[in-house]
Formats: sequence, structure tokens, C-alpha cells
Amino acid sequence: MGGATFSIPAWAEFAAVAVGSIQGAAYASGFRERRIDLFGVAFIGVATGLGGGILRDVSLGTALVALSSNWYIPVAIAAALIGMLLARVFSSIDPVITVLDALTLGLFGAIGTTKALAFGLPEVPAAFVGLIAAVGGGMLRDILLNMPITVMHVGSLYAVAAGAGTLTLVLLHDANVSVFLSAAICAAVVFAVRLLAVAFGWSLPEQRSLELS
Amino acid sequence: MGGATFSIPAWAEFAAVAVGSIQGAAYASGFRERRIDLFGVAFIGVATGLGGGILRDVSLGTALVALSSNWYIPVAIAAALIGMLLARVFSSIDPVITVLDALTLGLFGAIGTTKALAFGLPEVPAAFVGLIAAVGGGMLRDILLNMPITVMHVGSLYAVAAGAGTLTLVLLHDANVSVFLSAAICAAVVFAVRLLAVAFGWSLPEQRSLELS
Amino acid sequence: MGGATFSIPAWAEFAAVAVGSIQGAAYASGFRERRIDLFGVAFIGVATGLGGGILRDVSLGTALVALSSNWYIPVAIAAALIGMLLARVFSSIDPVITVLDALTLGLFGAIGTTKALAFGLPEVPAAFVGLIAAVGGGMLRDILLNMPITVMHVGSLYAVAAGAGTLTLVLLHDANVSVFLSAAICAAVVFAVRLLAVAFGWSLPEQRSLELS
Repeated sequence: MGGATFSIPAWAEFAAVAVGSIQGAAYASGFRERRIDLFGVAFIGVATGLGGGILRDVSLGTALVALSSNWYIPVAIAAALIGMLLARVFSSIDPVITVLDALTLGLFGAIGTTKALAFGLPEVPAAFVGLIAAVGGGMLRDILLNMPITVMHVGSLYAVAAGAGTLTLVLLHDANVSVFLSAAICAAVVFAVRLLAVAFGWSLPEQRSLELS
Repeated sequence: MGGATFSIPAWAEFAAVAVGSIQGAAYASGFRERRIDLFGVAFIGVATGLGGGILRDVSLGTALVALSSNWYIPVAIAAALIGMLLARVFSSIDPVITVLDALTLGLFGAIGTTKALAFGLPEVPAAFVGLIAAVGGGMLRDILLNMPITVMHVGSLYAVAAGAGTLTLVLLHDANVSVFLSAAICAAVVFAVRLLAVAFGWSLPEQRSLELS
Repeated sequence: MGGATFSIPAWAEFAAVAVGSIQGAAYASGFRERRIDLFGVAFIGVATGLGGGILRDVSLGTALVALSSNWYIPVAIAAALIGMLLARVFSSIDPVITVLDALTLGLFGAIGTTKALAFGLPEVPAAFVGLIAAVGGGMLRDILLNMPITVMHVGSLYAVAAGAGTLTLVLLHDANVSVFLSAAICAAVVFAVRLLAVAFGWSLPEQRSLELS
């Protein structure tokens, strides 16, 4: 028990995967000198668009949704190739991409957290699994590109937004708010925190140690 | 159901693992200045020789074959140490290694894909799992060595060969061709594409975005 | 069959996780120029303190202990933030940290190996799972930091100490020694090998290939 998993229509799920894959390929296009080939771009797309869900399902010990249908992998590959070809277009409409990405971040976080709660996980690990579902694809992208992991560095509250939303969701779940409403509030919190951080340039402090006199 | 898994005699499986581990250690031997120690070499050998099968089994949510017997790990370690000691010999017989590696690539792809089909996966994810089983060990090797992932960069159709073979296999499976024959054709396709690519210098294009006027 | 899993009191397990997380954050604090933020430090703490156990449980195909309670993740995060703030203190008491870390290494190795044996794994893979449980957190830390993997390079017998202990444990298990005694001897072997190596500067040789005349 633990409640139902928040689900979204199939078209919305594929759209969210595609946004992730486009993002991954557009990010990879910044590394021209690396000689990444078309397979590399396709693989980055699969990892970025589907990686968060794969890490979520491996963490929960359940069958991988990404491998459950013939459509997820081709959608991710097609989106990655489009992201590569149109990298300049996507770069010129960067605010649109940021908005779509913030929406995707919230959806993946809400789906991941409610799925973890449905598997009986306690609140904190359920919110953590939702966080991983939201930011894990980008982490895999950076590992595959042999780059520092973006979300672990000073930026615009990407992981913090995801974590704030998934923690809100588990609190609402404890207060017996319905899955659908909790998930919607989670996605809204992620969306708001992320876009406010981008707009106002909010970021987390860098690591620092205490000076000892 | 979904059919039987293609299996090969135990000696052939150990030989394929050993080829992978030798390759991994020989590759690592190109990084002398890194001060990798004997444990590092052994670990690279385990990751390269057994990593593809481990990623396959984790993806399928089944017990790891690599941990099911006392022999896989020692074979991989022994092969890696031989690969390290004889790196110059293997480098001087590079064509032989390329041929053995192409054979291994095809076998791992065929085993992975038929196992995924036997677990009931649809065609595309089954071929993807076969691809990961074939190239995943090399990817893990590169991540552990903190190097760019070789198969994602312009080269001689390594991943393309594996993907062409595993996609052929799922098509033959749909046409009710027997597991053994499908797997043999898969391995032959991988072998032929890879060696033709090496011989003729075929490669995939680099990533490129459309110019906007 | 397979025997029981060696377990330690909850406070000791949390203390071991905290030692790992402190270590991870203190290591990360050496990379000031990287602009790692507080989330990055927290995530490194979770990966270092809980990563070995996560890799162990994924390898065994069982539910992740790290996600089974509300306490593991907050303990790891809190320890990482303390490790960051007090990095200079921990650096000034380096010998104490080395001793605590050697103890943790042995405990994680003993817990991992006995759990793998309880799941019915043969001796060699059981010892390997124990090794991964002991050194896997540090490996994940290095991958996340995009650094060469410390334990694979010339150092003071870190992985060798863990492997010697876990192999000793499986031999004692075969000789029908009780789980508790075997695990205690395993931890003692790891502790002794590691600290003797630090004290005497013992290390494994670097990779080397045979010269061919």
C-alpha cells in the first residue's frame, strides 16, 4: 500500500522524456572538439531522458519502465538527434527550454516520489528517490561526458528545487492529501523554486570550512 | 516465455570474458603515468570482462551471472594480469585481438538480447539490452579510468555493429527463426560490420548542428 | 543455509556511515576551485557513506538498506556538512580518521560478505561483494567528483586490506566458524593490514608489462 503512483498521460510522459533528451544532446553539442559521433549523441539522449527513471526503478528493485515498451528508447534517440541538429535554435529559445525543463523536473520528481511511497518507502528515502528520478538523468549525462556533475556545483537551485518539491510531497502524503493534489503541488513547488532561482540568480553557497584561529 | 536464451559452452563464455579483460588491461596499460596498481588492473579486468553482463542482469532485475560461480571473477582477474604483462605482445598481434574482440562483441550481444527476449521485453529494449551487454564493459572501463567513453566517439563502428546485430536478432525472433540461428546470424552481423569498418575505415559522422542563415 | 548476516548495533552502523560521509566531504574539500555547492557536498556524503551498501544490495538484488529507514540519508548529509565545516580539524587529527576509517572498512566488508553468503553466493563472489561494500562508496565519490579512482592507484593497501579480510571470512565460513567470530576476524584482518600498510608505507606495485627482447 502506501498510496497510488501519480501518473500522467502517455503523451506527457513521452514529451518529458523528449525534453530531457533534447537538453542532453544540446549540452553535448557544446563539446565539439570531443568528436562525439551520432551513436554518442543518441546514447547521451537515452541516458539523459530515461536515466532518472532507470535509477529510480533500480533503487526500488522493480522492472525498468524505460524497457517496458518499444517507444521510450526511440523517442529519446529521435529527440536527441533533433536536439543536436537544432542546437542553435534551442539555444536561441533558451528561456522556453528552461521553462519546459523546470516542468519536466517537477513531473519526474512527483512520479518518482509517489512511486517510492507506493513501494512502502519511508518519507525521507521516498523524497530522495524522487530527487534522483528528477536529477539523475543529468548526472548520468555528465558522467558519460566525463565532465564535473553540473547539479553538484554552484548554479541556480536545480537539485534544491527538486528536493524542496519532493519533500513537500511526502509531508502532504503524511497529511493524507490525495496523490494527485500532492503531486501537483510538488511539481508547482519545483517549478516555482527553479524559475525564481533562475530569474533572481539565487544559488547555494559554495563549500567552506571553518577557519580555526 | 518469449523463447529460450542463447547459450554457449562454458569454455567459450570464459574465453569471451577473458578476451574482454585482456582488452581492458591492455587499454589501461596505455596510461602508465597514472600509477594504476595491480588491484586497479584486476578491477579494470573484472569491469571490462564482466561489466556488460552485470549491466544486462541489473537491467533485467535478475541474479547476476557474474556472481553465480566461483570462476568468473578469478578468470577475469587472471586474464587482466596476463593482458598487463603481455601488453606488448597483444599490441603486436593487434589484428588477432580485433578479430577475437569482434567475436566476443557478437556473442555478448546475442546472449544479452535473447536473455532479454526470454524475460519478455519488447523488441527495441531487448536489442538495447543486448547492445549494453556488448559495449557496457568497455563503457565501465572508461568511466573507472576517468576517460572519455571510447564507443561514443568517432571510431570504427563498434556500437553500430553491436546494435545492427541485436536489431537483426529481434527481427528474426519476430519471424519465428529459432534462437540458435537468430543468435548465430546476430553474431555474424556484428562480426562482419565491425571488421569491415576496421578494414575500410568506416565511421559514423561527428555531431553537427544545422547552420541557420 | 548460507548462514546468518553479521550485524552490528544500529548506533555502530550509523557511526560507520558517518565516518564514510565525513571522509567523503573532507576529501571533496580539497577541490575548492571546483565550486561544489552545499548540495554537492551533501550528495558526496550520501554516496560515500551509503554507496558501498547500495552497490552491495543492488548486486544481491535485494531491497536497499539505505532506503529502508528515515535516518540513513539525514545522518550521511549531516556528517558530510560537519566534515566540510571541520575539514581542517579532521585534517589535523588525520591519524584518528585513518584508524576510524580502517575500522569502518572492516565492518562494511564483514557485513557485505556475510550478507552475500546468506544470499547463497559462492565464496569468491561473496568476498567480492564484501570488497565492493567496503570500497564502493569511495569509488562512487571519485566518479562523482570526476577524479581518478583512488583505490585503483598506488597507495596504502586499502582495497587489498578489504579483500584480504573478506577472503579470510569466506574461508572461515567454509570451516564452519561462527558468523560472529568470522566477521570479527575479517574486520581485524582488514584493520591490521590497512594500518600496518599506512605505518610501513607498504603498497602494491604499479602496472608493468614484460620487456620483450
